[in-house]
Amino acid sequence: MKLKVKDMDIATGGVLVAIINRKDADLMDFHTLDRIKLKSGKYTETVVLDIAESDKAVPKGQIGLFEEVLSSLKAKSGKELEILPARKPLSLEYIKKKLDGKKLNKKEINQIVWDIVHNKLDLVELAYFVSACYSNELDMEETTILTKAMASHGDILNTRKYPVMDKHCVGGVAGNRTTMIIVPIIAAAGLTIPKTSSRSITSPAGTADTMEILASVSIGLKKMGAIVKKIGGCIVWGGALNLAPADDKIIRVEKPLAIDARSNLLASVMAKKASVSATHLLVDIPAGKGSKIPENRKALRLKRDFEHLARKLSMKIKVIITDGKQPIGNGIGPALEARDVLYVLLNDMREPLDLRKKALKMAGLMLEMGGKARKGEGLKKARYILESGQAYYKMIEIIKSQGKKVVDPDKIKIGDVFYDYKARKSGMIKYISNEAVSKVARVAGAPKDIGAGVFIHKHVGDRVKKGEVIFTIYTHNEINLKFAKDVFFKSDVIVI
Amino acid sequence: MKLKVKDMDIATGGVLVAIINRKDADLMDFHTLDRIKLKSGKYTETVVLDIAESDKAVPKGQIGLFEEVLSSLKAKSGKELEILPARKPLSLEYIKKKLDGKKLNKKEINQIVWDIVHNKLDLVELAYFVSACYSNELDMEETTILTKAMASHGDILNTRKYPVMDKHCVGGVAGNRTTMIIVPIIAAAGLTIPKTSSRSITSPAGTADTMEILASVSIGLKKMGAIVKKIGGCIVWGGALNLAPADDKIIRVEKPLAIDARSNLLASVMAKKASVSATHLLVDIPAGKGSKIPENRKALRLKRDFEHLARKLSMKIKVIITDGKQPIGNGIGPALEARDVLYVLLNDMREPLDLRKKALKMAGLMLEMGGKARKGEGLKKARYILESGQAYYKMIEIIKSQGKKVVDPDKIKIGDVFYDYKARKSGMIKYISNEAVSKVARVAGAPKDIGAGVFIHKHVGDRVKKGEVIFTIYTHNEINLKFAKDVFFKSDVIVI
Repeated sequence: MKLKVKDMDIATGGVLVAIINRKDADLMDFHTLDRIKLKSGKYTETVVLDIAESDKAVPKGQIGLFEEVLSSLKAKSGKELEILPARKPLSLEYIKKKLDGKKLNKKEINQIVWDIVHNKLDLVELAYFVSACYSNELDMEETTILTKAMASHGDILNTRKYPVMDKHCVGGVAGNRTTMIIVPIIAAAGLTIPKTSSRSITSPAGTADTMEILASVSIGLKKMGAIVKKIGGCIVWGGALNLAPADDKIIRVEKPLAIDARSNLLASVMAKKASVSATHLLVDIPAGKGSKIPENRKALRLKRDFEHLARKLSMKIKVIITDGKQPIGNGIGPALEARDVLYVLLNDMREPLDLRKKALKMAGLMLEMGGKARKGEGLKKARYILESGQAYYKMIEIIKSQGKKVVDPDKIKIGDVFYDYKARKSGMIKYISNEAVSKVARVAGAPKDIGAGVFIHKHVGDRVKKGEVIFTIYTHNEINLKFAKDVFFKSDVIVI
Repeated sequence: MKLKVKDMDIATGGVLVAIINRKDADLMDFHTLDRIKLKSGKYTETVVLDIAESDKAVPKGQIGLFEEVLSSLKAKSGKELEILPARKPLSLEYIKKKLDGKKLNKKEINQIVWDIVHNKLDLVELAYFVSACYSNELDMEETTILTKAMASHGDILNTRKYPVMDKHCVGGVAGNRTTMIIVPIIAAAGLTIPKTSSRSITSPAGTADTMEILASVSIGLKKMGAIVKKIGGCIVWGGALNLAPADDKIIRVEKPLAIDARSNLLASVMAKKASVSATHLLVDIPAGKGSKIPENRKALRLKRDFEHLARKLSMKIKVIITDGKQPIGNGIGPALEARDVLYVLLNDMREPLDLRKKALKMAGLMLEMGGKARKGEGLKKARYILESGQAYYKMIEIIKSQGKKVVDPDKIKIGDVFYDYKARKSGMIKYISNEAVSKVARVAGAPKDIGAGVFIHKHVGDRVKKGEVIFTIYTHNEINLKFAKDVFFKSDVIVI
């Protein structure tokens, strides 16, 4: 059958889809979600079929194509395409197999990942894969295969160095920008650390958002390799790279129901590490009330899982369970967090001590792992690198190589509309809620409004006097301030 | 936030979706699959949000609406709408709960069904529901609630009669058009049988397709009620009615992976029966090699499940396991099957004896269930109604009331391009494949080409002589004939 191209003027952002009219579909006995092969000269593409019931959307004799398919076929409106029936992807069989609780082998998992990466699966089909992995958890062998498959079906950064250091935090704690302190310390010590970070999804700032205050973070793989080769480290946005691309597509389908299949979470983290050829990894699991992982039992299980998977991938790993009960650092929001980081690197007296301490502890462990300090002496060495200014100078090198924006903390622009909350009684701070702090910062405008956020003047255990400022909300307009104050007063952000 | 309507000129065929530009989404911190509330004058609608990355699809300041949403809001291109954030449907929480293996209560199942019926769930979210029911099977209590919820969230036919007879076949056997013989027999006996049937999905003909050769089958609920009241019975297409509409939406998502969650299958069948207020039901489970249910053990389990669920719904039920190893009747395809049915009703010597026998047996059981025959005497009574011509006359009444097309079997138009396959050796027919017969009939053009199909001259156990015609393919053009012959010669359709 031959049909004329109609440009639908929409990108699906993934899945390769074509729409034909119900009448043409009936003629060929085609059904929704069938696969069809499109031929246009020397170009061919297999796509997912959708059927238009109305002639308005796609008239008989035409085929509606989205931007991804148009560009793959180098086709334009009005061009005639040949349409042939095609087989459904093999991976559908394997996804069904997993749904039925059976174990998948290497060939099957590889096929699924290949089909995901090449946009051959419809979102509904992908949801069945996620669901299958959630209900019938992949075992460690399958998880290892999935991790390797996700990494290998994507770009790989190979710096030809050994060791290659990396760190990861499972998240859930506001502030907590250790990466931007650890990377310069590790690189200053002469180790290699090609760090990729993510942007915020539901938090007021991701490391990529915060680093973007100081430098550009959308760096291509080639340039990233060159920077790391020259300077030893970088802090770039993983989303600008094609590392383990299957992972992002899987996460997109997990979001609607907040599904966190354990095996997929592990594979997701470790595939990103494998894509930068990391050999040594430090994982931070913040746990405790108010964090992502309130129960210690669960944190321990996750720790064991990470260790197990790393062993299978021949990666050296150290997993630490840290206190995740309250925010780390004072500023929450991209600009406020970037300023905290620079204060720490400059040993400025305004630095948040909790952030400094945590970053030093982690950097110390990594120096020991990477052979730059003897066991028990990493912390001392990390502190020396930080206090001597070596870490700050390394950070300047990184910032310059990534397109410098600002290096002076006092030149970072913070929202000029603010509200100071004063303690209504004297006493000791008993509790600060990660979730509520993040909510207030987001409503104030973070991370989109980079200067917005909140500043925590006191931490749990600190004594405060009545009338003392303990919490400030920053934003750029009165409306956001009003909304943020509303949220603040409705939730127990800080308990004295 | 206010945005101007852009008519996307597409119907989604279900889910209520609106698309806004990435820049507007970022301003409001909206994410894909978030819910937003649209206000246009006195009309409001909550819809699923999609985000356009390109300005071409939906520019900043505009909101792309699909036909369903446009009509619900009575909005037109260029009109300004107010956009407000809305909560995600409660049912997402319940779907997650089921995914986690927990039991759902009545309120939760009702909410899920309500959201499905009102197009509040995205297909990905619906897929998670299907998957949850597949991996963590609903128990009989949940299945009962689901069945009742599916029936009550839809139209109900209430004939105010007792008993109301119904029958169901789980399918998988080519031919097997017993419904069109049973309904007139039952109605002729004075019982009420408001029969809804489906069209073919993967078979060469559904009962609705076959009945459509003789009369119209797209009948509204009101007219259906009037027909049943007057004549006692009807044979209409369920798809034209709004009976248990959640079911069709669920089935649409089950198809891609051919997922058959046991509880959903049961609920699906029984909800349709409950929507026509059936009180007495006969279920036919064709089993054996080559049918949908090859293992007797599985057929027995399904039988017990049907009996259990019917008890919970206070419905009288009889479940029979029949021989599903070969096609029933001679013709396969809408016109060919309709002709077979009329031959049986007319007691014509060209009638397929297997179809006659099976229909009589089932009608007999139903006459006993409905109190029109004593136990053991139903078959005799059914045979009398058929042989006396009462069944045929009742069928003519039904056909006339549904918009008569044809009542004379010899006036039914069969494809004029055909191929006779002759036995290549003498012997006994050992096997006829349901699947292969259906495939050949479909490639010949059935059910879209209503006159296309195949005719089986001999059945399993029959003796044939070399050179005798045992199989005919009917179609309307040489191309389909060639394709159908190719399929025929490649598969073991008939084994001597």
